[in-house]
Amino acid sequence: MNYQSINFEDKLAKFSEHWMPRIIAQMNDTHFKVVKVRGEFVWHDHPETDEVFVVLKGRLEIQLRDGTVNLNEGEMYVVPKGVEHKPCAEEECHILLIEPAGLVNTGDVQSELTAPSDIWI
Amino acid sequence: MNYQSINFEDKLAKFSEHWMPRIIAQMNDTHFKVVKVRGEFVWHDHPETDEVFVVLKGRLEIQLRDGTVNLNEGEMYVVPKGVEHKPCAEEECHILLIEPAGLVNTGDVQSELTAPSDIWI
Repeated sequence: MNYQSINFEDKLAKFSEHWMPRIIAQMNDTHFKVVKVRGEFVWHDHPETDEVFVVLKGRLEIQLRDGTVNLNEGEMYVVPKGVEHKPCAEEECHILLIEPAGLVNTGDVQSELTAPSDIWI
Repeated sequence: MNYQSINFEDKLAKFSEHWMPRIIAQMNDTHFKVVKVRGEFVWHDHPETDEVFVVLKGRLEIQLRDGTVNLNEGEMYVVPKGVEHKPCAEEECHILLIEPAGLVNTGDVQSELTAPSDIWI
């Protein structure tokens, strides 16, 4: 029997909206989500958990209150719990997010960019 | 201030041994490890946790007792907890492992391939 691997590009090809993460896998209580982003997100934090960003395509800037992280394809960053951050991308960027199941993308901030946290693709 | 992203290729360039994972990041109690593999690993399982394989370069076959998963670059697979598996790679393959901190690569199996689980790079 052949079990199926999960292909990031195939999953990303299934949608086009920005800032709308889709779950592609679960490891214990951790979700793996792909998301397309462009432009500026909202300042927010996650008081209860770290959050991992992996850039699959393009370039991502994560603004922090006291600095900036620039991520290219093949790079990752762990935003520590409780640290305010604002992801930005001049051009469309494809990201793999790794975070606890149920985490809301804008944290406690209500925004038009707040997305459901339970959509599988 | 510029915070530093974590570059997979840069981390992988720092060592050459096979089947010897190095930790590159931590998210809560989860470790992110890079590892170079070639040849056949040993059959083992992790009774207490799922384990994630992401192929960064090359091709990986994960044998399961009732089938096989083939992973190419840009693909991932979640081996469920308790499921026996044996990773194999004909040519050198570079992998990102995501798993709970402290997890031993060969599970409960003692092998010459059993590696320390706490080496950061």
